[in-house]
Amino acid sequence: MRDTYREQLRETMADLARMVDLVHTALADATTALLTSDLSLAEQVISNDRMIDDLAEELEKRTFSMLARQAPVAGELRTVFSAIRMLGELTRMGDLAAHVAKIARLRFPACAVPDTLQDNFRQMADVAGSMVADAGAMLRNLDVDTAGKLAAEDKVMDELRRDQFKSLVDGSWSHTVEAAVDSALLGRYYERIADHAVEIAERMVYVVTGDDPV
Amino acid sequence: MRDTYREQLRETMADLARMVDLVHTALADATTALLTSDLSLAEQVISNDRMIDDLAEELEKRTFSMLARQAPVAGELRTVFSAIRMLGELTRMGDLAAHVAKIARLRFPACAVPDTLQDNFRQMADVAGSMVADAGAMLRNLDVDTAGKLAAEDKVMDELRRDQFKSLVDGSWSHTVEAAVDSALLGRYYERIADHAVEIAERMVYVVTGDDPV
Repeated sequence: MRDTYREQLRETMADLARMVDLVHTALADATTALLTSDLSLAEQVISNDRMIDDLAEELEKRTFSMLARQAPVAGELRTVFSAIRMLGELTRMGDLAAHVAKIARLRFPACAVPDTLQDNFRQMADVAGSMVADAGAMLRNLDVDTAGKLAAEDKVMDELRRDQFKSLVDGSWSHTVEAAVDSALLGRYYERIADHAVEIAERMVYVVTGDDPV
Repeated sequence: MRDTYREQLRETMADLARMVDLVHTALADATTALLTSDLSLAEQVISNDRMIDDLAEELEKRTFSMLARQAPVAGELRTVFSAIRMLGELTRMGDLAAHVAKIARLRFPACAVPDTLQDNFRQMADVAGSMVADAGAMLRNLDVDTAGKLAAEDKVMDELRRDQFKSLVDGSWSHTVEAAVDSALLGRYYERIADHAVEIAERMVYVVTGDDPV
């Protein structure tokens, strides 16, 4: 019975890693849709978000019934407890990727991101994508060393966001107010995806070592 | 033993309601700081966010040990499970109120919100504040009827956000790009606080009735 329980826990972690993969794809596709004004790809990201939500719903039910059927012991309980919280993070990351796609769709056939910020956004998307992949690897391998890498990447993300902000408000902005508002919100979405990846990394440290993440 | 458990659950719900009160105060103070350029009040909101985080940390530990020491039965498990998720929502709501205060601090002694948007923000803050209070009442009274009111208030919030957006991008914006960016982000923070209040309401329906919130 204990072995079956551990098996279920392993499966739950693997399913969380699958959710991370879906988020990673959604983020990459949303970025392509945004920077290349690809309407059909944007639509695809928006409709695929349902898959992430469905998986979250299924996993929420499973973690609930794991708690109901058998009281887990310390390390197991840490895992289930953290899974419940990580589910929330991942659902939100999917929503944020969909938000990026929605701005791409809203401005089609124009591109929401002005030329002067394309590089900045590409870098933000690359860093965020790498952080999501790192969080997924931590879930898959129960590895904690990558947490340090994620924290360092998050600093790069903060710098990119600061650069972006500077170009929006230093008086040199030559595009529309609409483009400024879009860029500020888009920047926020990428930054939040990165924040959630860091939170997942911190939860994984807690799952593996028992060290308090809060 | 069962009675003690139920007592602990009641306490946990009451503490979640206390977190809601702290968020409600933070939101009201952050709004006053924002609209009246009150630097010391902004600082106070920012430093008080630690109280919300500390309470969340304490409640996280308590819900964990409630799961560890005694396997809860159906309705109790729903409550603990939902408390774990609501803790995350409330921590985030506190962060968002602090974000509002940080923009107020950043622009001091100027006001981040232009005259033309002051009314819009005051209304957004009123609706968000009412929604937070309603979510708190649901936690305190285990009442589910208020969920409908919250959903209706959320629609008002969406309309206010749409009005705000329109004034930012319809070409009539006569303020700086910086003010537009600030307003867009501030609007987003209020909207997200409202979203979290709705999520808490949905969780409470689940706690009380067992109806699936996802």
